[in-house]
Amino acid sequence: MSNTSKNIVIIGGMASGCKTAARLKRIKPDYNITIIEKKPFVSYGTCGMPFYASGEVDDFYDLAITSWGTIRDAEYFKKAKDINVLTETVVKNIDLESKQVHCQNSKDYSRFPLSFTKLVICTGAKPKKPPFSVPHSEKISTFHNPLDAKKFREFVQRGKIGKAIIIGGGFVGCELAESLVSLWGIESHLVELEERLLPTSLDEEMSLFLEKTFKNNGIYLHLSSKVEKLEINNAGNPEVHLINGESINSDYVFLCIGIEPEIKLASSIGVKTGVNGGILVDSQMRTNIENVWAGGDCVEVKSLITGKHELFPFGSLANRQGRVIADSIAGKKSEFKGAVGAISLKVFGLIVAACGLTEKEAINNDYNAGIVWGSWQDRPDYHPDSKLLFGKLLYEKGTLKLLGIQLAGKGEVTRYIDVFSTLISKDATVHGLIDVEHSYTPPHSSPMNPLNSLGAMALSQEEDSIMALNPLLLNNYIGNVLDVRESTEINNEGLGKRAKEFPVMEYREKLNIFDKNKQLLIVCQKGPRSYEAARTFINEGFRDVKYLGGGLQFAKTVLDDEE
Amino acid sequence: MSNTSKNIVIIGGMASGCKTAARLKRIKPDYNITIIEKKPFVSYGTCGMPFYASGEVDDFYDLAITSWGTIRDAEYFKKAKDINVLTETVVKNIDLESKQVHCQNSKDYSRFPLSFTKLVICTGAKPKKPPFSVPHSEKISTFHNPLDAKKFREFVQRGKIGKAIIIGGGFVGCELAESLVSLWGIESHLVELEERLLPTSLDEEMSLFLEKTFKNNGIYLHLSSKVEKLEINNAGNPEVHLINGESINSDYVFLCIGIEPEIKLASSIGVKTGVNGGILVDSQMRTNIENVWAGGDCVEVKSLITGKHELFPFGSLANRQGRVIADSIAGKKSEFKGAVGAISLKVFGLIVAACGLTEKEAINNDYNAGIVWGSWQDRPDYHPDSKLLFGKLLYEKGTLKLLGIQLAGKGEVTRYIDVFSTLISKDATVHGLIDVEHSYTPPHSSPMNPLNSLGAMALSQEEDSIMALNPLLLNNYIGNVLDVRESTEINNEGLGKRAKEFPVMEYREKLNIFDKNKQLLIVCQKGPRSYEAARTFINEGFRDVKYLGGGLQFAKTVLDDEE
Repeated sequence: MSNTSKNIVIIGGMASGCKTAARLKRIKPDYNITIIEKKPFVSYGTCGMPFYASGEVDDFYDLAITSWGTIRDAEYFKKAKDINVLTETVVKNIDLESKQVHCQNSKDYSRFPLSFTKLVICTGAKPKKPPFSVPHSEKISTFHNPLDAKKFREFVQRGKIGKAIIIGGGFVGCELAESLVSLWGIESHLVELEERLLPTSLDEEMSLFLEKTFKNNGIYLHLSSKVEKLEINNAGNPEVHLINGESINSDYVFLCIGIEPEIKLASSIGVKTGVNGGILVDSQMRTNIENVWAGGDCVEVKSLITGKHELFPFGSLANRQGRVIADSIAGKKSEFKGAVGAISLKVFGLIVAACGLTEKEAINNDYNAGIVWGSWQDRPDYHPDSKLLFGKLLYEKGTLKLLGIQLAGKGEVTRYIDVFSTLISKDATVHGLIDVEHSYTPPHSSPMNPLNSLGAMALSQEEDSIMALNPLLLNNYIGNVLDVRESTEINNEGLGKRAKEFPVMEYREKLNIFDKNKQLLIVCQKGPRSYEAARTFINEGFRDVKYLGGGLQFAKTVLDDEE
Repeated sequence: MSNTSKNIVIIGGMASGCKTAARLKRIKPDYNITIIEKKPFVSYGTCGMPFYASGEVDDFYDLAITSWGTIRDAEYFKKAKDINVLTETVVKNIDLESKQVHCQNSKDYSRFPLSFTKLVICTGAKPKKPPFSVPHSEKISTFHNPLDAKKFREFVQRGKIGKAIIIGGGFVGCELAESLVSLWGIESHLVELEERLLPTSLDEEMSLFLEKTFKNNGIYLHLSSKVEKLEINNAGNPEVHLINGESINSDYVFLCIGIEPEIKLASSIGVKTGVNGGILVDSQMRTNIENVWAGGDCVEVKSLITGKHELFPFGSLANRQGRVIADSIAGKKSEFKGAVGAISLKVFGLIVAACGLTEKEAINNDYNAGIVWGSWQDRPDYHPDSKLLFGKLLYEKGTLKLLGIQLAGKGEVTRYIDVFSTLISKDATVHGLIDVEHSYTPPHSSPMNPLNSLGAMALSQEEDSIMALNPLLLNNYIGNVLDVRESTEINNEGLGKRAKEFPVMEYREKLNIFDKNKQLLIVCQKGPRSYEAARTFINEGFRDVKYLGGGLQFAKTVLDDEE
């Protein structure tokens, strides 16, 4: 190694750490780069863990191999990339003065120092500490470390698990619940503190699609359920006691209550952290300490919507951040501008996806949010692959700035989230939704896509006061109700005495049956007919007209149990 | 009707005409709106015709019904929307002076005038006239009018078609070819003048994916084939004679050689048209004649890439244009800014999709285009649904402006075209591709998506001279070749004596085996390994290094026959 070379030490060998190392070595081949990882493996596809747990991915090492079948281990990194990897090695402390990290090998406990000229902290996240005490048991586990998935697979393959409890209804908890039921036939209980699943990503009416799907697939949901106690019962099995008095016994308990940035080492050398507990970095991923960068799940990221720093612990962002860290160290111009938080989840064939702020987050950020809902076929009605799609759009009243979107369906979902994410990152407004040009072909879309449709509804709501009603509020609506569906559609599924029924081809002649000064709600199956009709009634001088957002198709799906 | 009301006459009752009418009536309920349509139906899903022809859509009227089962006919438009629809009515001429259109009913030949205050021309497109004479026969048909599809279905259901010829390998020809083979088992011949399918949307190496798929599914392709003569032979059947001497007999011939704007009426009143034969309109869809608007397949649209006016005859754009026409007539602020030309086609499970300029178009528009190719799994390698995806990106050297993209695969394709379309409409550069934040979940994507990947390759090509070689040029490459795949991957599929083989974990030790002053091509299976290796060789002072764009996986798929 030449004297001009630089020692780069990277703490953490998952997405952002490995990406930093690989790219930096490519740009600066004379740099001496070392990755320190406490686990026995690096560059491991943690997002694939639920698929290994479920059995869909058969081999544990499939999550750590290249596409050409080589395991991404220390030998691979050395020979293929000339990068040093130290696994099962813990950084005990960092000495900024002497520019050294002090390491310890976890197998033989040997200690050794490593010099650095630049340091990169990619320590990731760790499971949050539960607000209840957790007894030590091999039958209770987080689902964070790849070894958690491995241990579970060994257990389940020995037939030891008939019933399991998952505490936490976030992404990992939901994916795990599907895995347990669909592939292993385990009786699964999902316990969530909030009143809905994915509470930080979905509002109630959108989360209900997930809830219905879980219930239909035999998962026992315990929502608004606080755990009072987790104990090992007399039979030696874990038992969960809820604050409502209910107790659930089981053969295995997963703790999936979320993660938080692992910042112990960073804090020890004075790296600044934000209100959400993550490391603060600039757009080049530099911390406040000279020669120290950070990336991945341990950092806070600027929200491109609110401008505030938030936590977005996604593997896709970690990868992009690694690229920027490498560029920044190498002196190349490169920026990580922030994130909008585009997420998706697929369980039992249902895809729920979202981007931007939920209604709650919009309120917390002092936005005056306008909201519209929609339901569509994701392809033309005549196409045999056509599937239902439901959605909700949030925008800022006045400016028409896009705030967030949530979608649920079994077909084309993620493409619209990706386009929305791109639009919102370019400061687009509701007009931008109307202008979206998608690659239309009947096997994959309709001529007007859901984004065009949501944009048009939002604009009508703002410019022409064609107001949408939250489908959750249908049953509590006080006022006149007009159902403009055809009698063949209504059958026994009408709204009973609550509604007058005049199909689209007749209601124009019956306008005078309603009192112009009373509240009027117009409903139809999917939304467009009532949305059109609402305009007619407004044009006729009705004072307070709303249409049912997303139509009865949306409302009936999410309200069914409550009726 | 009050005296203040206005008479709006719309000529043409397909996507743009019906959308104009419906929206305008909603905004201006006192307007008197009439749609004149020469066919027996309006608002017909012409894009669905191939699916009716194939039998996937069973009922002819499924293409013209609302989602609640009502046929969108004259009665529906009158009762539900208070819009007048005259079907089977031809406009004979337009009198601007008296503001009247003179109509003729096609059934009883009665003539009558209609007064207008504003006129909207949505006359659509008509099949191009073939450069050969077409004998009159019930066994020769275009595939443009819905009745063409109906006639074909009747023929085929009576078992009268064993062999068919489709002349023209554009979108309609390709969709039709799949329909004939996959559902009716008809021996199908596809004749195309150019050397490839979809010649205006795909470059050769991307069109080859379509070609292979068609061949594998038993379709007989006749490319670079000019029709000399189409005749009815002695047996009474249509026979096609190609200029190369070949003759193909058949039971049925479809003429799918493309469409051109129907502008006869517009031209008759002095409406200006452009170099591509379509009506010229401004961003509010106004023609040069006062009180005359136009939209849909008969107009030219500004390309958001080149700024020139082009033809984009897509149903999705026609819908959006109808909205703008209505807004403009009603005095609402609304603009149709242009299009980027996002298209997709699905045949035999293969999706090909594109957006922006092809290589040929880029050259014709004087762009100095940089190009990169890629091949990926569309989901993580470990995921069981993972499918191959191939792509090509064009950008402008220097400015890094995005010019075009083409993708082919069986899984996630359209989402990336839609995002690209959005980016390009927002003037994004290659950097915008790297910044794309998609909704990552292993059942639908990898952490880094194809757009991120293409962006990174383009940037490396521009900033660091990591140059890609067009996969089509592999067999003609003159220079040293290094294959960095593992020996287990190569098996009998190596490049033979042409290449030295040193897998990724060994080539670093073998750098000196090659002459630094000679051309060197590095190949691997998918691209990333050779792309990385190329950088290493450049860093070591090699003068002319390229990596094989898209890897051998791409090259071998498209070159197989040629070897």
